[in-house]
Amino acid sequence: MIDHNLIEKIYLQDKLAISRTITKIEQANSNSIEILKELHKKIGNAYRIGITGPPGAGKSTLTNQLTKFYRKEGYTVGIIAVDPTSPFTGGALLGDRIRMGEIGNDPGVFIRSMASRGSLGGLSNKTQDAADVLDAAGYDFIIFETVGVGQSELDIVKVADTTIVVLVPESGDSIQAMKAGLMEIADIFVLNKGDRPGADSAITSLKTMIALKDHNSESWLPPIIKTIAQENHGINDVIEGINNHRKFLINHDFLNKKREENIKIRVKEIVEEFIKQEIWNTQRLNELNNEIKKAVIGKSSPYQIAENLINNYKNSIMD
Amino acid sequence: MIDHNLIEKIYLQDKLAISRTITKIEQANSNSIEILKELHKKIGNAYRIGITGPPGAGKSTLTNQLTKFYRKEGYTVGIIAVDPTSPFTGGALLGDRIRMGEIGNDPGVFIRSMASRGSLGGLSNKTQDAADVLDAAGYDFIIFETVGVGQSELDIVKVADTTIVVLVPESGDSIQAMKAGLMEIADIFVLNKGDRPGADSAITSLKTMIALKDHNSESWLPPIIKTIAQENHGINDVIEGINNHRKFLINHDFLNKKREENIKIRVKEIVEEFIKQEIWNTQRLNELNNEIKKAVIGKSSPYQIAENLINNYKNSIMD
Repeated sequence: MIDHNLIEKIYLQDKLAISRTITKIEQANSNSIEILKELHKKIGNAYRIGITGPPGAGKSTLTNQLTKFYRKEGYTVGIIAVDPTSPFTGGALLGDRIRMGEIGNDPGVFIRSMASRGSLGGLSNKTQDAADVLDAAGYDFIIFETVGVGQSELDIVKVADTTIVVLVPESGDSIQAMKAGLMEIADIFVLNKGDRPGADSAITSLKTMIALKDHNSESWLPPIIKTIAQENHGINDVIEGINNHRKFLINHDFLNKKREENIKIRVKEIVEEFIKQEIWNTQRLNELNNEIKKAVIGKSSPYQIAENLINNYKNSIMD
Repeated sequence: MIDHNLIEKIYLQDKLAISRTITKIEQANSNSIEILKELHKKIGNAYRIGITGPPGAGKSTLTNQLTKFYRKEGYTVGIIAVDPTSPFTGGALLGDRIRMGEIGNDPGVFIRSMASRGSLGGLSNKTQDAADVLDAAGYDFIIFETVGVGQSELDIVKVADTTIVVLVPESGDSIQAMKAGLMEIADIFVLNKGDRPGADSAITSLKTMIALKDHNSESWLPPIIKTIAQENHGINDVIEGINNHRKFLINHDFLNKKREENIKIRVKEIVEEFIKQEIWNTQRLNELNNEIKKAVIGKSSPYQIAENLINNYKNSIMD
């Protein structure tokens, strides 16, 4: 049973209704999938911006300033702050998250923090579901903000139309450590705290790395934009960069292709997650636990156990 | 059809037979699973050591020295060097890998490099299959060497009995960036290049971090061992650390528990990978491609498409 009253309220951008729906999604409430199927009829209008980078680079401040800019232009903004959690400690890493008091009270801004636990440190299906709720609710821009550690910075390309990588002059060796990933995902580089020493040499080394990438006349080359987000310097340039990238995607018919690619990955994840849940019921987990003891001492093989479990699962479908 | 001649040669530690078998595994040759089922009857005797850490910390040199030590004691050693590859560039990051000429010609040492591509940047099932071949072949120690970037350093705990994290004095901020993961997985810390400035303060900060971890009288507290691997200093201490940890695992009955846990994860991966392959056949991938176009424009929902594909898969099993 879908609560049509709730759906209507979402379409009216009722924050409480939106918030309750996202909570249902987080709790994997059985209604949430039916609600999402209904809401998906209205999605596709929001432009999705991903913001990532090392801790302390100023992602929250930038998100804050971009939001204020869009609000002045009359657009509404939904913000999803993804807190990656360590698979070992379960603790949130985004400790020093800036409070967004100012924009938080604006009726045209919706802010939600979500944990990415349980999805390889990345942006979970639930995060994307939440963004779809905001899209259906009519928010013009959706900003995903996630700290670039582990896998999450690579996952952001799967959900964003434009991905912004925020760096600071002193993150030179962070670039080294993560460049394999970050260099490839950035549509726009923002060098924040651009008044600090080392800013110009950081820009030079970024330019060098970008120039080394394979590209041709049809490629998008990520601009490098210097900002001092705290003082609202350079924000217009970031907006311009986003607009240019958006136009580039549309002119080359990449926007829909990119979104198709993202939805494809997502459908695959939904299918695989569902089947996994079905395979690993209590009975088969018990069987697994019993069999592995034999494998440790060489009396069975992981492959033999796997084969038995697969057959068992298939038989259960046929019953 | 299993090639019993090949199996016999593996049991005789014939390097060519072992190498050919690992190649079959890498190529997902249809025989490889049957060979592995047979070989699993002989596994469980090798002790598995994982070595990880940031690029340039000296992991290869340490592997080299540990191997020489074990060889002097009369033990045989299999080495699997895992090259994590970026999901985007496909390029290997272990560029400056030290050539292991000296130990490479030793008949009691088997060395193999493997890519971890396609397995979330981690240690793939294939890497573990290769280790099982070496275990069945009778190697006393198996050393996994992998650079600590992204996910692979977290995966190493799934395959190793003892995990060594190698750091260098100057990797202070690497620790910051990766500590959420590395601090939790290390059974032994090696501070290599211990003659460099900052070694003592690095040890102090490691000690502080270890002391902050939850622990009780039953817990293993990772020792911090200073080495200059290049000059063979401190290698005896590392060997002693490994022996102590091994004894600790055995005395607390943790070794088999840990291996059971590892095999459990592995069986799950094998089952899920097999089912995934079965789901995503050409026909269903085509269906997926056709349907996503509708989802982009809000005419369908990822959940609706997923539901149809799941039903389609289940019907195919029943046919």
